[in-house]
Amino acid sequence: MGAGEEWTGGVSGFEEMWRALAPVGRSGESGGYFRQPWTAAEGELRAWFAEQAAARGLTLETDGLGNAVAWWRPEGATGRHVLTGSHLDSVLDGGAFDGPLGVVSALAAVDLLRDRGHTPTRPIGIAVFVEEEGSRFGRACLGSRLVTGATTWAAARELRDRDGVRLDDALAAADLGPTGDDARWPSLTDDAHAFVELHVEQGRHLVDLGEPVGVASGIWPHGRYRLDVVGEANHAGTTRMEDRHDPMLTYAMTALAAAKQARLAGQRATFGRVEVTPNGTNAVPSRVTAWLDARADSEAALEALVADIARQATDRAGRDGTTLTLTAESVSAEVRFDPDLAARIAAGDDARADWPLLPTQAGHDAGILSAAGVPTAMLFVRNPTGISHSPAEHAETADCLAGVEALADTLARLTT
Amino acid sequence: MGAGEEWTGGVSGFEEMWRALAPVGRSGESGGYFRQPWTAAEGELRAWFAEQAAARGLTLETDGLGNAVAWWRPEGATGRHVLTGSHLDSVLDGGAFDGPLGVVSALAAVDLLRDRGHTPTRPIGIAVFVEEEGSRFGRACLGSRLVTGATTWAAARELRDRDGVRLDDALAAADLGPTGDDARWPSLTDDAHAFVELHVEQGRHLVDLGEPVGVASGIWPHGRYRLDVVGEANHAGTTRMEDRHDPMLTYAMTALAAAKQARLAGQRATFGRVEVTPNGTNAVPSRVTAWLDARADSEAALEALVADIARQATDRAGRDGTTLTLTAESVSAEVRFDPDLAARIAAGDDARADWPLLPTQAGHDAGILSAAGVPTAMLFVRNPTGISHSPAEHAETADCLAGVEALADTLARLTT
Repeated sequence: MGAGEEWTGGVSGFEEMWRALAPVGRSGESGGYFRQPWTAAEGELRAWFAEQAAARGLTLETDGLGNAVAWWRPEGATGRHVLTGSHLDSVLDGGAFDGPLGVVSALAAVDLLRDRGHTPTRPIGIAVFVEEEGSRFGRACLGSRLVTGATTWAAARELRDRDGVRLDDALAAADLGPTGDDARWPSLTDDAHAFVELHVEQGRHLVDLGEPVGVASGIWPHGRYRLDVVGEANHAGTTRMEDRHDPMLTYAMTALAAAKQARLAGQRATFGRVEVTPNGTNAVPSRVTAWLDARADSEAALEALVADIARQATDRAGRDGTTLTLTAESVSAEVRFDPDLAARIAAGDDARADWPLLPTQAGHDAGILSAAGVPTAMLFVRNPTGISHSPAEHAETADCLAGVEALADTLARLTT
Repeated sequence: MGAGEEWTGGVSGFEEMWRALAPVGRSGESGGYFRQPWTAAEGELRAWFAEQAAARGLTLETDGLGNAVAWWRPEGATGRHVLTGSHLDSVLDGGAFDGPLGVVSALAAVDLLRDRGHTPTRPIGIAVFVEEEGSRFGRACLGSRLVTGATTWAAARELRDRDGVRLDDALAAADLGPTGDDARWPSLTDDAHAFVELHVEQGRHLVDLGEPVGVASGIWPHGRYRLDVVGEANHAGTTRMEDRHDPMLTYAMTALAAAKQARLAGQRATFGRVEVTPNGTNAVPSRVTAWLDARADSEAALEALVADIARQATDRAGRDGTTLTLTAESVSAEVRFDPDLAARIAAGDDARADWPLLPTQAGHDAGILSAAGVPTAMLFVRNPTGISHSPAEHAETADCLAGVEALADTLARLTT
């Protein structure tokens, strides 16, 4: 919708954007999405976002990583800005909602605020952060980490994707790349009054509570750890079982131990990615590399969980005659979102809203901006199955529109 | 060495061929070999073999799959032929000896027989069979299975490699392909008097016995089985452990159960290849596919081993809420090599040889030709570590030359 046009109703505006995004990066086989950063599909999404900004008369600001902010800065909107938005990239074979729902809802909220005749007293920026999922370079929230300085460009530029492509080469191939030695975007956080990210819920709290929208209280501490198990390649037929040093067995026992330990402790531990060398049917592998995703309700609990998994894995490696290392690739501290902001959203003074407060185990750019000192809040939209990071991820349109209203209300309150 | 030249000694002729092959398809990283069929590396090996045949005045005969036989058919050599040779392809990141030692030794044995002034009374053919390892299309001994009719072209042509390339497209890309609906080569087996394959030992029998050369008594029955475990993709952070249907756990328990069961039964079970979908760190996988390589000292024992692994895997799938299928991709019956032929080689009437008889757990083209009714024997050359299907695979030159002599003696006995 152009800046001069009239708001034609939440359903049609929201659904039109949703329909435009539906085919981008979608697998014909699974119906899931492959929107890895700095690929053709993600380039199409960035172009779509630029068009949406232009159609609304928003000023697009971008950086050398592909992060983008579309600014609504009408006359009289001064001082510290209010950010909203989310990300457009997906996990491998992911769902349609994780990320894009926050971007589409932010655009629809701006449309709704204009329709209501609201003129913000502060600039409102709709942000799109790149590589939130870490599905290509293995570092979740890489875009927001780099702009806030939580990760340095010196540390990130040499990261390699699964095909061995370096991050700076991937950026160059997409006609991007920081111009200097730094990938920071200081004004984004330094001048921020607040950041509000809307996201599809990735669990069943809202279903169980019967509410279409909720407000996040915080994010569990979580980390990604690379497990490297080195054994001895050998013939799968002629090598006696007792003469083997098979890294697959060390890995398999570690995966089972991690799941059991997390279940007993009420935490989370997942091995979703495994790479075997040489990965041939008739050879004992020389190496198995796997990634542990671990999350817990406190930092002490996370450390204890990972230490316990490492201890059991090391014991097994001793029995298998393999060697094992566990390397933290990224660890995110616990995030407690701004309680005043959350309370204001959850029970707005105009009584329009009365949303429940919920914790989450999922990392988000909101966690990174919160850690960088920006007062931050998150809105969740009900997910009828709780399934996420899967083609089966879903949210009903009525709930999405309730989310747009809640976000518009929040932005209005923060810019009045 | 050309047909008209003189035999310049086993060491120099053998070593010259060995040096020529050493760099082909070798990984700079591991030092191991990647000689997958119908790739550039394997094309180079086939060209090398054609040159070696031409240099010796041998007549090269090839088929549409890339199988080749170099014939030594001097005047007076009539009737049923004697085949020797092996294969030139490797497992992923394999060793230098598995396959090429049999081909190089066969060429060196022909040189040695000429040097001794032996004129064979039957044609001698040096065969190279393609895709012996099954490292590209997943079917071990694919070349010899197709020429003997153990596998039909109709069943094989639609096989796909890891990149989704169909076998017939891979052949076309290498300017190959059967001309009709059949990939058989009937005369190869129908007109065969015997097949003798020399191979590096893939175990430690000869080391323990202190012998440089041995003779195979037979091959254990063995098979490859694809394990498909389907679960439910979900978020690695927000999905409670007890709400998951994680196929990785079903797989991990199956891998441990297989190893334990094989160890207790004195058999072999290996999971060397795993593919995870979507293979992302922060998602519970939707599917894990893994390949079981199982071998046992009798067909009943193999069936019992696989049935026991399947039972434990199915029990676990029930607890994980995943679904599981185990599909036999190729199963090879027990091979008992021709006992008279083995006895003649093991204790030759000229008392030159006195080699021990050993069983093997490794599949070979010799097993396929034996099953096709060709009187077949195998010679093994000592492997000082027993390691095979690994860059560390090795044989000392002195032992290789003893192998050449034993092969030459055998061929002489079969063609006098």
